[in-house]
Amino acid sequence: MKLNDLKHTHWQLARRAEKMNPSVIREILKVTERPGIISFAGGLPSPQTFPISEFAQACDKVLADDGRGALQYAASEGYAPLREAVARMLPWEVDPAQVLITTGSQQGLDLVAKVLVDAGSRILVETPTYLGALQAFTPMEPEIVGVPSDAEGVDVERLGALSKDARFLYVLPNFQNPTGRTMSEARRSALAQRAAELGLPLVEDNPYGDLWFDAPPPAPLSARHPDGCIYLGSFSKVLAPGLRLGYVVAPRAIFPKLLQAKQAADLHSPGFNQRMVAEVMKDGFLDRHVPTIRALYKSQRDAMLAALQREMQGLDVQWNTPDGGMFLWARLPAGMSAIELLPRAVEKNVAFVPGAPFYAQEPDLRALRLSFVTATHEQIDRGIAALAQAIREQARC
Amino acid sequence: MKLNDLKHTHWQLARRAEKMNPSVIREILKVTERPGIISFAGGLPSPQTFPISEFAQACDKVLADDGRGALQYAASEGYAPLREAVARMLPWEVDPAQVLITTGSQQGLDLVAKVLVDAGSRILVETPTYLGALQAFTPMEPEIVGVPSDAEGVDVERLGALSKDARFLYVLPNFQNPTGRTMSEARRSALAQRAAELGLPLVEDNPYGDLWFDAPPPAPLSARHPDGCIYLGSFSKVLAPGLRLGYVVAPRAIFPKLLQAKQAADLHSPGFNQRMVAEVMKDGFLDRHVPTIRALYKSQRDAMLAALQREMQGLDVQWNTPDGGMFLWARLPAGMSAIELLPRAVEKNVAFVPGAPFYAQEPDLRALRLSFVTATHEQIDRGIAALAQAIREQARC
Repeated sequence: MKLNDLKHTHWQLARRAEKMNPSVIREILKVTERPGIISFAGGLPSPQTFPISEFAQACDKVLADDGRGALQYAASEGYAPLREAVARMLPWEVDPAQVLITTGSQQGLDLVAKVLVDAGSRILVETPTYLGALQAFTPMEPEIVGVPSDAEGVDVERLGALSKDARFLYVLPNFQNPTGRTMSEARRSALAQRAAELGLPLVEDNPYGDLWFDAPPPAPLSARHPDGCIYLGSFSKVLAPGLRLGYVVAPRAIFPKLLQAKQAADLHSPGFNQRMVAEVMKDGFLDRHVPTIRALYKSQRDAMLAALQREMQGLDVQWNTPDGGMFLWARLPAGMSAIELLPRAVEKNVAFVPGAPFYAQEPDLRALRLSFVTATHEQIDRGIAALAQAIREQARC
Repeated sequence: MKLNDLKHTHWQLARRAEKMNPSVIREILKVTERPGIISFAGGLPSPQTFPISEFAQACDKVLADDGRGALQYAASEGYAPLREAVARMLPWEVDPAQVLITTGSQQGLDLVAKVLVDAGSRILVETPTYLGALQAFTPMEPEIVGVPSDAEGVDVERLGALSKDARFLYVLPNFQNPTGRTMSEARRSALAQRAAELGLPLVEDNPYGDLWFDAPPPAPLSARHPDGCIYLGSFSKVLAPGLRLGYVVAPRAIFPKLLQAKQAADLHSPGFNQRMVAEVMKDGFLDRHVPTIRALYKSQRDAMLAALQREMQGLDVQWNTPDGGMFLWARLPAGMSAIELLPRAVEKNVAFVPGAPFYAQEPDLRALRLSFVTATHEQIDRGIAALAQAIREQARC
């Protein structure tokens, strides 16, 4: 019954799809899944932090209490008690009606792009910026412009010239992916002020803010300027990513459009998962749970810093000291490319992510991202030693 | 610390967002959530069909066997055993590598549009067509053209003229939403042949195909012409919608682009949910479970047909007899508008969905969609009587 192909089906791709190309890095990183590789590459939370028994209890309770409700279609906005819990935990006054539950905060980025970006629209990002945000924004075909940035965040002085007709500035102020850096209080204050002066919308992404090591980061930009900010949050780093739940807090001017885009994208995020998370969060569970993640990740960061200190002796390698989160940013000796180093590192059974794809414009080819949270201390020691060896060999080529 | 708004933030909406408007019908239907309303409006599966105890066992097993894996980030393609299960259950030869797990089949529509539609691209749909597809396609700003259709499906003779430069034809051949109609074997055969001749890609949506009453529907278009079709399926109607799981089967020419769009949209669908469904489906559960849904929905359809027969006496109201699925399509007396009838019906505590929003071009204002699966037989009797009364009164105005 199958037809012979009478004429080759004409799959005419959209312009945006022509731009989607398999990432070279993704191809290389597939190798990192083979056994024996020590991976500093992934952005995976440590699975030992996942509260499995609490989730198991929550599943049972959700299905026993109202299984039919949990398994039925539901409102695109999200499950009301979860929206209320999100509003309560944020450090500024948020009406639950402004909270949209999303399928991970990645979806928040997709919705923001759909609602605010036309083909050719200018949008501003940090230098470097979160790769997943670039991937989410790109299908809407914006002109993406990187704002020069330093260890404290974006250069606020440069915003005036760059922000003309810009639809928004996307920032990840806390323990940024990829650099691990945190925007200082002074920079936040200046940025919020300048954005308000310019009328420039801010999209503030905060997946890692709760994962601070010694002291909480300064208040979010959204707390300073709520009508000028869209805020994205996530349960992936404080509970577990496999439930795919995040949220967007949006000003009333924008919320209805985001909601309509959400409905068109996937109708709603899984109601069952939303009830599970609402159930687990009851009785202040996060207040007890998140400190254990902080302590673990801090010890992991310290292990990586100690290993770098020990192994990179005599090599012109630089790195920063993140105050929280999952990532550390390093810079190879002058003239060395992280992309070229990667295959040699993988040969030595260690992997990282080159920094280049995180740049909207000219990449820093020497930069690389190291995740310190998934590997054990012993793996960190071995992996950093192997990385140092790879750099040493590469330097001799 | 909160800033005074120094200048009103300039939220410049994307062109597509300007087109998104709160649906009048959605506003009216909010009323249908009030207690006492008998709703034939929603597209909600009957919750008594949700296999709650099987899900509870599956949750426990998934978390006990590999909770960390289930709760971690996962591959954008989907959970391998679920992809394999999908490939096995489809009635043509499908490689699991062609199966992409999505956050409901609604997301499949979003991804298809992103990959295949540019602003101004022509796409073809049935007349009428699934409203959710129109909503998913619209953000990519296509020119949507409705192909004239009858009770057997689209008019194949009209395709030649309409398909020039069309990116695809979207069809829902089994127990269509909204009309409940099924594309006949002859029409499928002619359509697959003609699409192949024209090189016109088909997007085949099949959320209801398993819900047949007396005999299975004819084979999918994709089984006849797999290289020329993208196929969308869903677990929402055979298991439960609240887990938000569907799938896309795509030719090798298109799969990598859909995968990249998927990754940008939400990274992956919840791995926990995918494992739950794979677990529940083991040992042929669907073969035992789905016949119980068929039997229930058939008795519901029969109850609604009987009530219509009884209550619409003397009124010039027409309706069809769907061979499966969840919906029945009715037509009001000449000159009567379903949109105008709705508030009067809601006053009488019964709700439906007017047909107009399901049309890409000129709507049939007399048409309306009735879901027969959520209300009880007793509610169907009362609801159809109330609807007949509303029509009678409206006819007198």
